[in-house]
Amino acid sequence: VISGTPDQTIADLGEQQLLQRLYQYCDTAVVGDDAAVLAIEPTHEVVVTTDMLVDGTHFSVGLAMPGIQTTTPFDVGWRSAAANLSDLAAMGAQPLGLTIALGLPPQLPVQFVDGFYQGLKACLDNYGTPIIGGDICRAPTWIVSITAIGQVHPRRKIQRSQARPGDVICVTGCHGAARAGLALLLNEHSPDGLSPEEYNALIQSHQRPVPRLDIPPLIWAIDPEARVAGMDSSDGLADAVLQICRASGVGAILDGDRLPMPNCFRTMGSLSDEDRVHYTLYGGEDFELVLCLEEPLAAKLRSKLDGSLRIIGKVQTHPTVKLVYGNNLACSRTLSLEKGFQHFTS
Amino acid sequence: VISGTPDQTIADLGEQQLLQRLYQYCDTAVVGDDAAVLAIEPTHEVVVTTDMLVDGTHFSVGLAMPGIQTTTPFDVGWRSAAANLSDLAAMGAQPLGLTIALGLPPQLPVQFVDGFYQGLKACLDNYGTPIIGGDICRAPTWIVSITAIGQVHPRRKIQRSQARPGDVICVTGCHGAARAGLALLLNEHSPDGLSPEEYNALIQSHQRPVPRLDIPPLIWAIDPEARVAGMDSSDGLADAVLQICRASGVGAILDGDRLPMPNCFRTMGSLSDEDRVHYTLYGGEDFELVLCLEEPLAAKLRSKLDGSLRIIGKVQTHPTVKLVYGNNLACSRTLSLEKGFQHFTS
Repeated sequence: VISGTPDQTIADLGEQQLLQRLYQYCDTAVVGDDAAVLAIEPTHEVVVTTDMLVDGTHFSVGLAMPGIQTTTPFDVGWRSAAANLSDLAAMGAQPLGLTIALGLPPQLPVQFVDGFYQGLKACLDNYGTPIIGGDICRAPTWIVSITAIGQVHPRRKIQRSQARPGDVICVTGCHGAARAGLALLLNEHSPDGLSPEEYNALIQSHQRPVPRLDIPPLIWAIDPEARVAGMDSSDGLADAVLQICRASGVGAILDGDRLPMPNCFRTMGSLSDEDRVHYTLYGGEDFELVLCLEEPLAAKLRSKLDGSLRIIGKVQTHPTVKLVYGNNLACSRTLSLEKGFQHFTS
Repeated sequence: VISGTPDQTIADLGEQQLLQRLYQYCDTAVVGDDAAVLAIEPTHEVVVTTDMLVDGTHFSVGLAMPGIQTTTPFDVGWRSAAANLSDLAAMGAQPLGLTIALGLPPQLPVQFVDGFYQGLKACLDNYGTPIIGGDICRAPTWIVSITAIGQVHPRRKIQRSQARPGDVICVTGCHGAARAGLALLLNEHSPDGLSPEEYNALIQSHQRPVPRLDIPPLIWAIDPEARVAGMDSSDGLADAVLQICRASGVGAILDGDRLPMPNCFRTMGSLSDEDRVHYTLYGGEDFELVLCLEEPLAAKLRSKLDGSLRIIGKVQTHPTVKLVYGNNLACSRTLSLEKGFQHFTS
């Protein structure tokens, strides 16, 4: 990897030199033409997902909002890759490659772009996924647009619309950890009550999420013909359940006592009860999977995952999504999409 | 198509409403999950290309630079689609679908986004290509990132690296027209000497370029086993020839008397001789194809295109690209990549 002087900017380097520099992160067998060509298994379909991330909105490397740095450029790269691979995992697909379009301010240090690509590649290398192309252009702020391409067997797709009344609703991993990590980085909460390991785990959840590409092969190994509804929890657990229910024309009952919050939320003194539930339901960016399955399949998947799959509720015919706390009707509430994250209104 | 009040902004509408509005332009059988799924012919490979466009750099709808509007939002949509389809054509591929990521300032009028999608769809509908997904987010300026997915037969790929000494270099259509159209819109040149039809044709070249998806099937119809090197001329004719030569390890002699400039350049009084050549070689965004073929194939393709394919030079072993005017050695010059368009330096 070429390294430049620390204060070298994109404008100093120029477009052609920058392109040459970025080629080293790409699959050289594929880049160099007007478009990239990827082989795909003849029985499979193409899966495509795209994401745009903007400095100051989706990440903060200390430029758009001086003084606020919650992610290094390496982390931005890692998270961008993870977010897109997570969308592929949510479809039951395997990744084939990624394209990266970057809008760059001329004064951006070149080492930011290097760090970004290193993080991207570090995440992708875990899955043998190449960077297959991209585009760069001048922009007033740092903008990343990623498209991930994958493949899926047509009878092994995970789709939002496939939930049926009686299915159990399961989630992988914890929810709210990424949001709590961000809150710690922004000093919105003190780390009181957290061990150093717990503190680091929350920060890692925000900076280095892990896409659940491991899950679909486990499901198909149990039952190659399984019907699976699901999506990832990038916009929060509540949003995922609501989106699945809307797409499937069903509703759900979620068990408030089984919300998949990190264990350390209980000892983290600066979190109110309301914060804990809010982060877990609406935090987002944990990049876990929310799945609706028949109960026996969920049980088998849970045993394969050493119990780290949690059943949090059940799909019902009535098209509302309720969070219920045992017999405590006073705490129960109906969830709606309007409470989720909105980019354009505050 | 839903229409809003003329002064409604993205912030007024909100993210969920905007997404609902944009769904109407998409292939509803495909959007709605974490990723889109596309069927592909079992014998084919996946082709992927991506482009990022920024208001004020790649287009001007009158926002980034108040008072300068060279493209309507409809044109921006059309050109964005055309640019990506052109990259697929340059690979010999057929389009399967497009994803669109939009970075939007909250104060952007909703009708700009509607116009953009209408232009996108108008261009795509000519080829039966659906919009299969996307992303929207808040950004300080209007940013468009498009990824086009196509399919190509593995033995019918057009690649830059396939030029061989002795090949003829051919171009489809005219070059320099899009740049001249932009110059007219920016009042860099007066339209003196142009008929209204010629004036409009130059403007159209800038605002509504047509990708040459018609060319690859014509080539394979003549010879399904043909070796074809090529790329599109989005960054200019000179750039295309230079990139092909670099990738193929060859050079070229271009005939200065056969440059594919629009006929009206000869009567357009405000263009100097230097402007004519400069626009034709370096103008860019004509989205035509530059191909290196064996001469008999070029002749057959030319006759299928009613002569609108022009042979402009020949591939040579020596790795320089020379522009030669008959016996006039004084006007001859060597072309280099450094003269092309650079985004980050001026």
